Amino acid sequence: MSKPVLTLVKIGGNVIDQPALLEKFIRDFSRIVGHKVLVHGGGKIASELSRQMGIEPVMVNGRRVTDIDTLRIVTMVYGGLINKNLVTLLQAQGCNAAGLTGADGNTIQAHKRVHPEINFGFVGDIDAVNTLLLNSLIQAGIAPVMAPLTHDLHGHILNTNADTIAAELAVALSEAYEVRFFYCFEKKGLLLDIEDDDSVIKNVYLEEIDELKSKGIIAAGMIPKVDNISDAISRGVEKVILCHAEDITTIIGGNSHFGTIFTK
Amino acid sequence: MSKPVLTLVKIGGNVIDQPALLEKFIRDFSRIVGHKVLVHGGGKIASELSRQMGIEPVMVNGRRVTDIDTLRIVTMVYGGLINKNLVTLLQAQGCNAAGLTGADGNTIQAHKRVHPEINFGFVGDIDAVNTLLLNSLIQAGIAPVMAPLTHDLHGHILNTNADTIAAELAVALSEAYEVRFFYCFEKKGLLLDIEDDDSVIKNVYLEEIDELKSKGIIAAGMIPKVDNISDAISRGVEKVILCHAEDITTIIGGNSHFGTIFTK
Repeated sequence: MSKPVLTLVKIGGNVIDQPALLEKFIRDFSRIVGHKVLVHGGGKIASELSRQMGIEPVMVNGRRVTDIDTLRIVTMVYGGLINKNLVTLLQAQGCNAAGLTGADGNTIQAHKRVHPEINFGFVGDIDAVNTLLLNSLIQAGIAPVMAPLTHDLHGHILNTNADTIAAELAVALSEAYEVRFFYCFEKKGLLLDIEDDDSVIKNVYLEEIDELKSKGIIAAGMIPKVDNISDAISRGVEKVILCHAEDITTIIGGNSHFGTIFTK
Repeated sequence: MSKPVLTLVKIGGNVIDQPALLEKFIRDFSRIVGHKVLVHGGGKIASELSRQMGIEPVMVNGRRVTDIDTLRIVTMVYGGLINKNLVTLLQAQGCNAAGLTGADGNTIQAHKRVHPEINFGFVGDIDAVNTLLLNSLIQAGIAPVMAPLTHDLHGHILNTNADTIAAELAVALSEAYEVRFFYCFEKKGLLLDIEDDDSVIKNVYLEEIDELKSKGIIAAGMIPKVDNISDAISRGVEKVILCHAEDITTIIGGNSHFGTIFTK
């Protein structure tokens, strides 16, 4: 018996911070037929609030160093402001959604990152995903909306990378669903030439990734993204589509002229 | 056939703002056997953050006037900081919980308060409770933890009184469950003499409430609380226990020497 299809979409600051694009995305996501899950990142709101409160954000290798004050801020912004606004906007489009963090339903258990040189503070690396709550929501026809926060089961919330969360959820859900994982970002896909927005590579197979890295086509900020993608595929996710948020409905509608499709 | 018992507990700032009491409460709530729901209020954190951001809180008749900046703050503090901390602390005690607002699962639909003289801003009065998400969670063995926020189905989050939310959830859940509704606050119950903490009235029947009001025993801040309670009972909730948060496990354990029990 074939598994039911589930669409998992990951958006980041590139969508959240642009009101017009966000509005379009919310409409598009609401129209996706069948089971669906949304994972969102942070965006610039957390840094803005941080500065407003006199705390200068510290980033190391693209990760926010999370002291106790910063943890309060990301808990408020990711788990409260962004998450609840997304849910409320989806509800207004007739899409029944429920916002959660990895602490809710003990969905994502993590531990504080251990690093030989840098103290990242309350940054979490994922240990386990538990799909009980996700499945309850999905079965009730409610779309889970996941914020980039996890917990350690010892009473601490942990700030956790949204790309990693999306990939881990995709893997965990691929046990029961045929997961189509859409990775929305600010480009139209993986570009052969970073300067040419239309040089999208149509298909990438896992075995090609090392070569694309060595050629510098997968470079800088793309590396952790592609690593998450290839990890997800090698662990059971059928298809990952890297695309611009503007193109998502077109792609879901069956138009294969957009985005980069990663498969085994 | 008798309905399964469900324990619904409402806590406010009196518990949330006191770390030692909160810790005890979390342990106690975690140990409640069977279905359970927690509803929490705000506490002083929202006002503190407000002032930190240069916004002086405005209260009218005990309700926070909620302009757009204040709405952002309560969304962050109630829906994010407080809600996710409660969930994370419950998880650490082995209590599987999931935090939500009235927007999640379209659980509580409300409208912006209409008032002839005061513009309360984004303050919501409840129109409808939808138990789909609550029931999914409860059936999965997950305790819902509800923040005092609702939505209007048109994309707006609304700041909503936690006492009212607790009472409305109690009523809605009483269709499928025998609801025991615990109203935790800073006193041991309804006091015959407000100066004497031990003058708790043991039992109050609905028909006595008017007289207690006219005698001034139910006065000031107690009036809206008792109105919520009597409304809940007249609409199907079997029992409401008004008590100090410190006494909750003792009471749930069957000791009837604590709190005031409201019944029909």
